[in-house]
Amino acid sequence: MALPVDVPVALLGYGTVGAAVDRLIRENRDDIQRATGHRLRVVHALVREPGKERGHRPDDGVLTTDFDAIAHNPEIAIVAEVMGGVDPAGDYVLELLAAGKHVVSANKQLVSRRGADLFAAASRAGVQVRFEASVCAAIPVIKVLRESLVVTNVHRVLGIVNGTTNFILGRMREGGTYEDALAEAQRLGYAEADPTDDVTGADAAAKMAILATVAFGSRVTFDDVAHQGIDRLEPAHVQAATELGMVVKLVGRATLVDEQVDVRVQPALVDGHHPLAAVEGAFNAVTLQGDAIREITLEGPGAGGVETASAVVSDMVSIIGTTGTGFLQNDACWRELPKLPPGELLSPYYLHVAVADRVGVLARITEALAEHRVSVARLSQKLVDENGAALDIVTHEAPAGRVEAALAQVAALDEVHATPTAIPVISDRPL
Amino acid sequence: MALPVDVPVALLGYGTVGAAVDRLIRENRDDIQRATGHRLRVVHALVREPGKERGHRPDDGVLTTDFDAIAHNPEIAIVAEVMGGVDPAGDYVLELLAAGKHVVSANKQLVSRRGADLFAAASRAGVQVRFEASVCAAIPVIKVLRESLVVTNVHRVLGIVNGTTNFILGRMREGGTYEDALAEAQRLGYAEADPTDDVTGADAAAKMAILATVAFGSRVTFDDVAHQGIDRLEPAHVQAATELGMVVKLVGRATLVDEQVDVRVQPALVDGHHPLAAVEGAFNAVTLQGDAIREITLEGPGAGGVETASAVVSDMVSIIGTTGTGFLQNDACWRELPKLPPGELLSPYYLHVAVADRVGVLARITEALAEHRVSVARLSQKLVDENGAALDIVTHEAPAGRVEAALAQVAALDEVHATPTAIPVISDRPL
Repeated sequence: MALPVDVPVALLGYGTVGAAVDRLIRENRDDIQRATGHRLRVVHALVREPGKERGHRPDDGVLTTDFDAIAHNPEIAIVAEVMGGVDPAGDYVLELLAAGKHVVSANKQLVSRRGADLFAAASRAGVQVRFEASVCAAIPVIKVLRESLVVTNVHRVLGIVNGTTNFILGRMREGGTYEDALAEAQRLGYAEADPTDDVTGADAAAKMAILATVAFGSRVTFDDVAHQGIDRLEPAHVQAATELGMVVKLVGRATLVDEQVDVRVQPALVDGHHPLAAVEGAFNAVTLQGDAIREITLEGPGAGGVETASAVVSDMVSIIGTTGTGFLQNDACWRELPKLPPGELLSPYYLHVAVADRVGVLARITEALAEHRVSVARLSQKLVDENGAALDIVTHEAPAGRVEAALAQVAALDEVHATPTAIPVISDRPL
Repeated sequence: MALPVDVPVALLGYGTVGAAVDRLIRENRDDIQRATGHRLRVVHALVREPGKERGHRPDDGVLTTDFDAIAHNPEIAIVAEVMGGVDPAGDYVLELLAAGKHVVSANKQLVSRRGADLFAAASRAGVQVRFEASVCAAIPVIKVLRESLVVTNVHRVLGIVNGTTNFILGRMREGGTYEDALAEAQRLGYAEADPTDDVTGADAAAKMAILATVAFGSRVTFDDVAHQGIDRLEPAHVQAATELGMVVKLVGRATLVDEQVDVRVQPALVDGHHPLAAVEGAFNAVTLQGDAIREITLEGPGAGGVETASAVVSDMVSIIGTTGTGFLQNDACWRELPKLPPGELLSPYYLHVAVADRVGVLARITEALAEHRVSVARLSQKLVDENGAALDIVTHEAPAGRVEAALAQVAALDEVHATPTAIPVISDRPL
């Protein structure tokens, strides 16, 4: 279907992001026409309360409570879903796609939980669903994965995809406590009053599900992503990282091994020379590793109303630029890959073991590691007080399951005071 | 013009990049078809010596010395120029565009010198010219600028776009001399036997010309880019940077100020907290600053045969995905912006002044700066030997011209031993 020069578009939602989309379209009408040959115009925005006071007023008649006025308006070619939540957003988007409208979504909850359904519906209807804004706001990682890295066989995605936790970890590295850092993040507006989604890794897990789906072409939902947050990290881990020339980050890892997929979010020690180590404050970054590109890292603000709106409008622009060619109308989930058994994921690990300072304890621990074929790259022992010592170990790459088994054996030793800690290490160079 | 399912393409050149393009197309035929609905096939590659021994053999009959067999073959829809050099590559590309063929170029010399002509010819013929591979190999900065940042008003591009010099500066930071670092870069294959283009900043200038053109939509050629290399950097500057918590990088800066353009390449002191400070070894990175996105940084390998080939094939894929919609057939140089007078570019500066350790010298130097309204953010003085001291100064943001004038006044002082040094500082935070 060829688009008219003037392309009427609609929004589902008119909050911070929706209003910013409206403003960006208005202010950059000429730029959009130059790039695409078309002019965009927001004709409707679905809201619950049209009369509510708003920072940015749309044109008269734009706000509506009537979804059908959007779904059944044949002039509207593109709809941006910026309302958030899975219900009713999901049903709305499915209905719009079935009605032949292209849809742009900024909604990580929706795409990470029902993405495969949306992609299939779009393919059936011959329209596009784009979702750049659902992951890391204006950082164009979805476009780069889908359009620039078609022939690179991306097999690993590493992401710092939650700005709140990255900010908190930065403060902890400077010596602050978790509680103080969280309070400051809340004061600065980086963290919600209820920060659960951020600090438990759930927010990052949703984004990693979307990134893994696009990178590997196989359905990965939020529920497939094992996640562990930063709420149980101890200052001792942050300190140990610094001593090792590393830095603690909450890292999402999506890995493709022998056509099997593993996606997880957990704190990791990132080597100081890795690009992700330098990501500061509330910024996000994603590293894409592939055969033909080695490693590309994209970094920027991962949140913000205008940043998110910029990604939404870019997706609209890209839809206009590719209508009629079928480009990217292929289902993003074109195959069904099995999950890698979680114990088989390879990684180097940092291990922290609190032990009694007794003869032979070091031998028993290194024996336990050797028995499970976990090889030690670096080891340091220091006295903590008259009764105890701390062992800091960095292992070579080993399967997660073997590291866990070795640590269970270590934990059972009489000389071991507390449950040992294992944190994966991310590094581009030999440890 | 709608493309057939099977799209014959041709290459100009079959060196390292050309052979890798052929291989990537062959090995990823299914991925390309999935993304675009089309299959690519290399039917011709223009070479001077078809009989020459080659690492990768193309299919029989692919190699040809006959340019017209490509230009006049109506079946060939897309041609990738991977031969390098301005002549005859430029004339070939113009002829191909006029013949209605889309062209992908990996050639920074050509695009930085004759880009505007190529864009105009493509617009006239209604075909596309894409050139992702001409800047930073597989890092998709051109695509991101043209397609993702349409509504963000990018006003500043900062780039570490030469891997050789970045590698050398890294070694110098670790204490090595320029000569040793260059020799090592040559041994590792990062630097040519004749490294002039790299170390003088000429290579970076060509890439910055292309980035500025695309970012600002106005013609910037290689000759418009003032460039200064790292060949006159002294270990003392590298050392001073470390003491200031900064790092010396060869930085390309393209700036849009009041609809005036400034593009330059020179050594800069990059604050340790800026994303560009962390770019190590032979990697490249580009930071894009715009109204709606704040700052996005893309980092990765900036060179390499397969990496470059990956960008070439991505451009082919993008052409297929956007044929017929006119997307990006607009002339990348759609306006003619004037140059910013070079003295007006604002930047903080690091100043190094070698002085006699005499009463009143500090006062005279700070007076000279104040007279030219150059404000001092940080200053430290240290004794070098019994006769002399060194002043290290970091200024607040000031126009380049005023800093130069102040320094000329300082240089004329009796107490000043050698020509003072001024190096721009790049920082995202207060100095």
